[in-house]
Amino acid sequence: MTLPTITCNPSSSCPRFANFWSNWKGAKPIRLLISIAVGLIICFAVPKPDKIPIKGWQLLSIFLTTITGLIISPLPVGAWAFVCLMALVATRTLTFAAAFAAFTNDTIWLIVTSFFFSRGFVKTGLGDRIAMLFVRGLGKSTLGLSYGLVLSELVISPAMPSTTARSGGIFLPIIRSLAVSVDSHPRDVTSRKLGAYLIQSQLQSAGNSSALFLTAAAQNLLCIKLAQALGVQIPSVWTYWFKAAFLPAILAIAVTPLLVYKLYPPEIKSTPNAPIMAATRLKEMGSPSLDEWLMIGIMIVTVVLWMAGNALNIASVLAAMMGLSMLLLFGVIDWDDCLSEKSAWDTLVWFAVLIGMANQLTTLGVVTWISDGVANTLSSGSMSLPAKFFVMQAAYFGIHYMFASQTAHVGALFSAFLAMQLKSTVPGRLAALALAYNTNLFGALTHYSSGQAAVYFGAGYVNLRDAFKLGIIVALVNIAIWVAVSSFWWKLVGLY
Amino acid sequence: MTLPTITCNPSSSCPRFANFWSNWKGAKPIRLLISIAVGLIICFAVPKPDKIPIKGWQLLSIFLTTITGLIISPLPVGAWAFVCLMALVATRTLTFAAAFAAFTNDTIWLIVTSFFFSRGFVKTGLGDRIAMLFVRGLGKSTLGLSYGLVLSELVISPAMPSTTARSGGIFLPIIRSLAVSVDSHPRDVTSRKLGAYLIQSQLQSAGNSSALFLTAAAQNLLCIKLAQALGVQIPSVWTYWFKAAFLPAILAIAVTPLLVYKLYPPEIKSTPNAPIMAATRLKEMGSPSLDEWLMIGIMIVTVVLWMAGNALNIASVLAAMMGLSMLLLFGVIDWDDCLSEKSAWDTLVWFAVLIGMANQLTTLGVVTWISDGVANTLSSGSMSLPAKFFVMQAAYFGIHYMFASQTAHVGALFSAFLAMQLKSTVPGRLAALALAYNTNLFGALTHYSSGQAAVYFGAGYVNLRDAFKLGIIVALVNIAIWVAVSSFWWKLVGLY
Repeated sequence: MTLPTITCNPSSSCPRFANFWSNWKGAKPIRLLISIAVGLIICFAVPKPDKIPIKGWQLLSIFLTTITGLIISPLPVGAWAFVCLMALVATRTLTFAAAFAAFTNDTIWLIVTSFFFSRGFVKTGLGDRIAMLFVRGLGKSTLGLSYGLVLSELVISPAMPSTTARSGGIFLPIIRSLAVSVDSHPRDVTSRKLGAYLIQSQLQSAGNSSALFLTAAAQNLLCIKLAQALGVQIPSVWTYWFKAAFLPAILAIAVTPLLVYKLYPPEIKSTPNAPIMAATRLKEMGSPSLDEWLMIGIMIVTVVLWMAGNALNIASVLAAMMGLSMLLLFGVIDWDDCLSEKSAWDTLVWFAVLIGMANQLTTLGVVTWISDGVANTLSSGSMSLPAKFFVMQAAYFGIHYMFASQTAHVGALFSAFLAMQLKSTVPGRLAALALAYNTNLFGALTHYSSGQAAVYFGAGYVNLRDAFKLGIIVALVNIAIWVAVSSFWWKLVGLY
Repeated sequence: MTLPTITCNPSSSCPRFANFWSNWKGAKPIRLLISIAVGLIICFAVPKPDKIPIKGWQLLSIFLTTITGLIISPLPVGAWAFVCLMALVATRTLTFAAAFAAFTNDTIWLIVTSFFFSRGFVKTGLGDRIAMLFVRGLGKSTLGLSYGLVLSELVISPAMPSTTARSGGIFLPIIRSLAVSVDSHPRDVTSRKLGAYLIQSQLQSAGNSSALFLTAAAQNLLCIKLAQALGVQIPSVWTYWFKAAFLPAILAIAVTPLLVYKLYPPEIKSTPNAPIMAATRLKEMGSPSLDEWLMIGIMIVTVVLWMAGNALNIASVLAAMMGLSMLLLFGVIDWDDCLSEKSAWDTLVWFAVLIGMANQLTTLGVVTWISDGVANTLSSGSMSLPAKFFVMQAAYFGIHYMFASQTAHVGALFSAFLAMQLKSTVPGRLAALALAYNTNLFGALTHYSSGQAAVYFGAGYVNLRDAFKLGIIVALVNIAIWVAVSSFWWKLVGLY
């Protein structure tokens, strides 16, 4: 093969050139150049502040290149993280040991383990069964049906720590079959009959279920980890998290399906067949299999260990490892299921890379320098403490329009936003938990805001304009509920 | 569901009981009990030597349970390693950080990266093309054909560090189509016409190709890593390894296909169609694709970096990461290929667990205690130094009949056998490299000795008796060649 030497204008009909680019499967070139340029500009064109060591400045440059790449995706997230990790080691910014240090991070392994756990829910059919029980009980009207689905997600979520797995593995398949059973089809005038509403009601409520339990979403654990790195300690973290979230999350869940019902009404208001369908489905399933009973038992043991972890001196990750070991020993899931769970390995790589960088940015003083800067600017504006708190939380929320993943957002910005608030003397637990809850609430902002948003949007029932419109309205209502309730509730809980 | 309460004799026709066990997908109960019993007996029934701390004794117990499980497999290797890792943390034998420490081990990441690299060879078709070129050039006679195949493996091996991937991904498919083209079929009287011979010739030679280059097999890197942990430093390790292996490996490769030809002759001695078939296949493939050129270029860059690593201060793992990053950026392989490469993730988990335990056994003084004991026993027998060296190398080799994986063998026994020899004043590099080369040579001992042995045996051309017979005879001849040649060659190279 010889590379083409003829010069040719890409817009003219030059088959070789056209062929080369249409066959190109590598990194997207413009996005790659932009991502690299961001880092190079910071590193070489922006004068380094005296307070930051050279390695720290290099790290910040590569970190910003990494984040830019996470947003505009020259390569898939995991691949991009790996390339940036290579750059860290190759430029001697970090040693191999420092760059890879976060691969021993317990939170990351808790997340990896959780993905395997979620697989058990899907594989055994237990997730389906729980949802069908709620549909059978509450599903006569469309509104009842949506509450049934939302409540079943609430029940499952503390032991299935991936909102995306819940949506893709359990709820989307059920909603789809419910919708099709009343002739509501995707990409079609019939989509608004039932499917579109159920999907939006489920997606918009999911953020609150995920906010209610520490172990209901992978990024929750990450937030706690990053907060600890900045010195914010939370005792008995599972129960503390739950107590603080309890009232606002429950109220928001109670309101959301109704709100979506008013804003985005389904054409079919009554679904007499849904409970019948659920009953038939349950009948087909028969009595729960041994695997389902084992899954229930192991899930209960694990959740109890998570709740009682502090008293028993069993770390969350150890509880999860015990649960997974039992699942493996009893054959509820097998090792090949774990190895096939690509999302677990993907997350392992790119989380570890991001957390490793974030930790080192703190160690090298970069985070402090940035947060000092922002906090000084804010304090020179003579803002009150609550105003600063709201400005920074709102900024953190709004920036999510730029992110395609909740966890990427946490990895990129959580530490910086928390450090700024700590610097502005916002109480640590208040700042950390508010950011963490916000992270769950912005997951339904757009169709690309999170894994679950992408999964539900991909089903084709909701058009883009409606997704954006509902995203922002429900987010504002949710925020209003959380602010109103938590202003007194968090005082009671002792957050401030 | 209620669990059966009726008592019943398993041998009588008790459908419920039979059903339970025939549906059982979890850990194999007898094997599980044996594995656990080994650890419990060591921990509670064997008196702990004074020199070893309690945690060290607990670790040894769990380690022996782990190794027993690796041999008798109550669960797949990775799952078993994970369960034992959980046990380490749950019993407070090791902290989470210590138990997971090896996940930042550079050798493990070199191995993981290598699996992705291997995938590029298979995916682009470059591996096929290289083999076909050798078949076209040398394939007129059966003997020439087998030399062609063996030489093409030799060429590929320094950049494709998985003997199993080479056999399963490249050579088995080629051998199969060559055999079928002359009507030699598996599990059939025709198997001995051509297929059986080519498979045994390739398998028996593969150990020598793998021994020739440090980067030709995953376990080589592991050996070096474990040797370093015991203080055996090897400068410019890639070239040092290559120099020491060069003469014995090349001679053994020259002899092996001919030896197998005499011991296990193919019925067809002349294969005039093989070069024609290869030529047709090469014609079908057309000129190398851009991906193949990229693969060649990146492979050359990576191998050069491996060889020149010491001079340029680029660690092997960094060179591999650079190569992989290029493969990803150019789209030769994509991230989903990496995530789908289950063997990489499997190896990551169980290697890291084993290496982590092995390191901690050294730290806690257990390895020294065992090797002191054996060395004292040997020295009380007034054996000469060379005799001790041969006894210990031969014991290490023979024990492989108990193992189903080269890497498991290394993880379980390399450190202990090296420590014993160091204690008996065998020169460190000699002991370490001899063990490492032996590890490659015992890969074809039985049909379960290694990944490649299982892959080739699985093709169905060779019967079990022949596999065992050829395994031991070729191994003895190989050892004779290695001993004869290296007795002077290693003196020249400076190993002793």
